[in-house]
Amino acid sequence: MKKHNFSAGPSILPQEVLKKASEAVLNFNNLDLSLIEISHRSADFVAVMKKAQELVLDLLDLKDKGYSVLFLSGGASTEFIMVPYNLMKTDGKAAYLDTGAWSSKAIKEAKLFGEVDVVASSKDKNYNFIPSLYTIPSDANYFHCTSNNTIYGTQIKDFPETDVPMVCDMSSDIFSRKLDFSKFDVIYAGAQKNMGPAGTTLVVVKDRILGETGRKIPSMLDYQIQISKDSMFNTPPVFPVYVSMLTLQWLKDMGGIEAIEKINNKKAQMLYDEIDRNPLFIGTAAKEDRSNMNVTFLLADDSKKEAFDKMWNEAGISGLKGHRSVGGYRASIYNAMPVESVQVLVDVMKKLAE
Amino acid sequence: MKKHNFSAGPSILPQEVLKKASEAVLNFNNLDLSLIEISHRSADFVAVMKKAQELVLDLLDLKDKGYSVLFLSGGASTEFIMVPYNLMKTDGKAAYLDTGAWSSKAIKEAKLFGEVDVVASSKDKNYNFIPSLYTIPSDANYFHCTSNNTIYGTQIKDFPETDVPMVCDMSSDIFSRKLDFSKFDVIYAGAQKNMGPAGTTLVVVKDRILGETGRKIPSMLDYQIQISKDSMFNTPPVFPVYVSMLTLQWLKDMGGIEAIEKINNKKAQMLYDEIDRNPLFIGTAAKEDRSNMNVTFLLADDSKKEAFDKMWNEAGISGLKGHRSVGGYRASIYNAMPVESVQVLVDVMKKLAE
Repeated sequence: MKKHNFSAGPSILPQEVLKKASEAVLNFNNLDLSLIEISHRSADFVAVMKKAQELVLDLLDLKDKGYSVLFLSGGASTEFIMVPYNLMKTDGKAAYLDTGAWSSKAIKEAKLFGEVDVVASSKDKNYNFIPSLYTIPSDANYFHCTSNNTIYGTQIKDFPETDVPMVCDMSSDIFSRKLDFSKFDVIYAGAQKNMGPAGTTLVVVKDRILGETGRKIPSMLDYQIQISKDSMFNTPPVFPVYVSMLTLQWLKDMGGIEAIEKINNKKAQMLYDEIDRNPLFIGTAAKEDRSNMNVTFLLADDSKKEAFDKMWNEAGISGLKGHRSVGGYRASIYNAMPVESVQVLVDVMKKLAE
Repeated sequence: MKKHNFSAGPSILPQEVLKKASEAVLNFNNLDLSLIEISHRSADFVAVMKKAQELVLDLLDLKDKGYSVLFLSGGASTEFIMVPYNLMKTDGKAAYLDTGAWSSKAIKEAKLFGEVDVVASSKDKNYNFIPSLYTIPSDANYFHCTSNNTIYGTQIKDFPETDVPMVCDMSSDIFSRKLDFSKFDVIYAGAQKNMGPAGTTLVVVKDRILGETGRKIPSMLDYQIQISKDSMFNTPPVFPVYVSMLTLQWLKDMGGIEAIEKINNKKAQMLYDEIDRNPLFIGTAAKEDRSNMNVTFLLADDSKKEAFDKMWNEAGISGLKGHRSVGGYRASIYNAMPVESVQVLVDVMKKLAE
């Protein structure tokens, strides 16, 4: 029996993608060679990289709008360093919105490079909402935010209007909903939620904002060098990039972001409706800021824990445990999660209340 | 027909490793979940990481000798930055031996951090030998060298005796030959030659040399932080780490480095003997510095090129083209390359001469 995988990340991927990936490890493109034992400069892999980059621009509706697409390694945590290296002037400053553990880590790294203005934070409420009243200083070199907070189950619904370049860590909700992506100057995302396996990081960057800081940037951390080498300054993470390409192609074939957003909204609605209806459960995030990717909730009565855990385990559900800093449960319902799996969880929640 | 894969990297991996890796992408450890869709903090993956680290210490004979093992991402090129960040004092200097394109890139990055003393270089001979007469300044914070030069087919046979901490990029020959690895303070290696697929980098570091530079180090680039988090400061490259673990286990089961070194010596000898015997071929590297991993050679008479290329292609050989900066051919004969495949190439070379 295939599990209902609610893991927060690395997380569920489409079955057909896993099948193709598994085959490619044995024999890629009928080359009689494994995907992971051919040169990254071979025509077959260069085509994979190119296709992945095209799919990103296509899905985000950023074609011919002056953006470059990179598939790097090091995870989003390395972007916490690359962003200030590439965008913060040597005597400049940056503005950050603090909406959770990952924002907070990004802020910590940026402070190594210069002044950081934390424009707002929801830390004193354990990040259970998204601050909405704040001002971005017009002299900031950039404004950084985190679109979705996996741990706390919150998501930015409205992004600020600002003339300051906008950088967004979209690791946990990229490709899940329609946005005007051209409002952003840098978008980055670790692959391991909606895009692929752990091991590659997507960076989409507006070319014209680069090269302005006056800093000496180590080559591996320099967006301009990575762009000039088409993400192959050094050997890229071949397998993660390939699986990301397959997942992006799967999404495109499904009808793209518009189509998946409808399904995502439906899945989230099913769970939030049950949380709000069922007296045994309490949602942890402010209603207006609830994430459509990570649904966090507590049991109203902890004595039901054993029974609930037994029931969902028996139903074939995995990865439902909440993050230690919030407790309770977290249902991560990324793009690849079928409606049917969400229904299984809702049914268990209903049954517990009976 | 399975190809004879002489690719310089990413490169050949053992068939049984590819088979297990392919299976794990569909169903890992009978969890009814893919390896790439489970949490990196799950017991199943934590065990993979632990096993991989243990195998490294075991194979390199570094158990209980004060070393930590890291599986990072970003490739060896990121180590070009991490090494000076972690070892070069703010007012210090480092000594580098320049034996090829990769040494030269390492030097370039180190110069962003402070003074770099290039103790010797074979650049004016297109890196066709390993310099042996040089002095390592005793006040250097560390000495950096590259053990094997894939492009030029050279390999350091004797490492210097020095009191200066020794750092070695062993990307292309780690686990291929017995060395006293305890002579080194930092060993690093991109996985994609003898260890696994592209996407993870092995770092073996002597704990007591860290924390001495006075630099503020970004978290992702700080060996001490990575050690304290057991290579899971952020989500590690799960698939590349898993396949590396499988490959290290395969090597251990074969009898470890001692056993593979005998086979590697035999394979190299077969090719070098043929190059030296056959008037149609010319080796490019100085004999005493010839690599046992990458055998580089030219045709004595370029008019034979078409015939030779046709013959090895027809024999099922792939990846034999030399790097553009040397030309000719490069047979990469890493650990996973069977003696039989080398024999196929030798036979083609013999046949060309007939």
